[in-house]
Amino acid sequence: MIVEFHFDFGSPNAYLSHRAIPAIETRTGVKFTYVPVLIGGVFKATGNASPAVTLQGIKNKGEYQQVEMERFLKKHKIADYNSNPFFPVNTLQIMRGAIFAQTQDYYERYIHEIYQHMWCEPKKMDEPEVIRNAFEASGLPSADIFEGMQDTTVKQTLIDNTTRSVEMGSFGSPTFFVDNEIFFGKDKLTDVEDEIINNNKKR
Amino acid sequence: MIVEFHFDFGSPNAYLSHRAIPAIETRTGVKFTYVPVLIGGVFKATGNASPAVTLQGIKNKGEYQQVEMERFLKKHKIADYNSNPFFPVNTLQIMRGAIFAQTQDYYERYIHEIYQHMWCEPKKMDEPEVIRNAFEASGLPSADIFEGMQDTTVKQTLIDNTTRSVEMGSFGSPTFFVDNEIFFGKDKLTDVEDEIINNNKKR
Repeated sequence: MIVEFHFDFGSPNAYLSHRAIPAIETRTGVKFTYVPVLIGGVFKATGNASPAVTLQGIKNKGEYQQVEMERFLKKHKIADYNSNPFFPVNTLQIMRGAIFAQTQDYYERYIHEIYQHMWCEPKKMDEPEVIRNAFEASGLPSADIFEGMQDTTVKQTLIDNTTRSVEMGSFGSPTFFVDNEIFFGKDKLTDVEDEIINNNKKR
Repeated sequence: MIVEFHFDFGSPNAYLSHRAIPAIETRTGVKFTYVPVLIGGVFKATGNASPAVTLQGIKNKGEYQQVEMERFLKKHKIADYNSNPFFPVNTLQIMRGAIFAQTQDYYERYIHEIYQHMWCEPKKMDEPEVIRNAFEASGLPSADIFEGMQDTTVKQTLIDNTTRSVEMGSFGSPTFFVDNEIFFGKDKLTDVEDEIINNNKKR
């Protein structure tokens, strides 16, 4: 069974999903494949926009999203989430870094650490100096990753992942696929888990 | 415990919620209070718009809503849903009728019957002749209800309900309140049920 999590470090709801995924992996015995995509590219290809844009000027809707976020934090006992004051952060460099890290032995650690720098001790992770300091604080090979980010194949893979995601039905973040069945939004993780359990039973 | 369902006959997602509510009432022993509101009024007061409008021109998002609707129908074993070819139907008259029916002994039957005429054997329920024929086919006192719809208090109550709904945090349909805790969307009915169960335990 292939369970894909299409993520961009810039999406708070993808981050919160990331925090809920380990427990689902433990309960189901199925690992999520983290697929780096550019949410900006998904928005461009679909004509969609971030909630930060679409919620503007709509009374009550933003407040409700906040209520749902608090409920999610409480339900999943997430105490160290902090909204990033530099939102929206241009994640192109750190997403290219994720593509490069996939070819190295520290992909999982890279994801964990960058997410920490985005949403626990939030930083302006689109400035080279800030990124470099963050890599170093996390014990990641800064020079290697910066070199990797410039690699033509790395750049193209991120574009290809994004194109493929839209072809599979993506229009926002976070998006999950369980054997190609699409689920959108952190609130659908319960359905993602049910789908995994059902697919497990069929085998 | 007060569980409110703010509904407008014009919203397909409110209708689908209506179909899922009886089982929740049976499991929890708590009755939902059906509060008639004008979704058009909610949109106007909040600057929001119907998904039929906001989904326009966005690739994949409408298709995904369709997938989620199919999942909901399957999960709740709803076999007789039919999208209304006259959507969007101006529901002002039949919502005023709901306000009037609240003062009579056939409120529940009115809701059930009008929903049937909207989403099972869908009709253009904003034309007086169509409404009249529907009332008669359902054995509802057509003349009484048409007279009630013109009542100043009835008209004002529908406006007041809508204003109060927005004051409580509404921005779309369907919206639920469990002792003033707000939940939006048919997919939140699981959380509504959990909240009712938790509140039941506290008493």
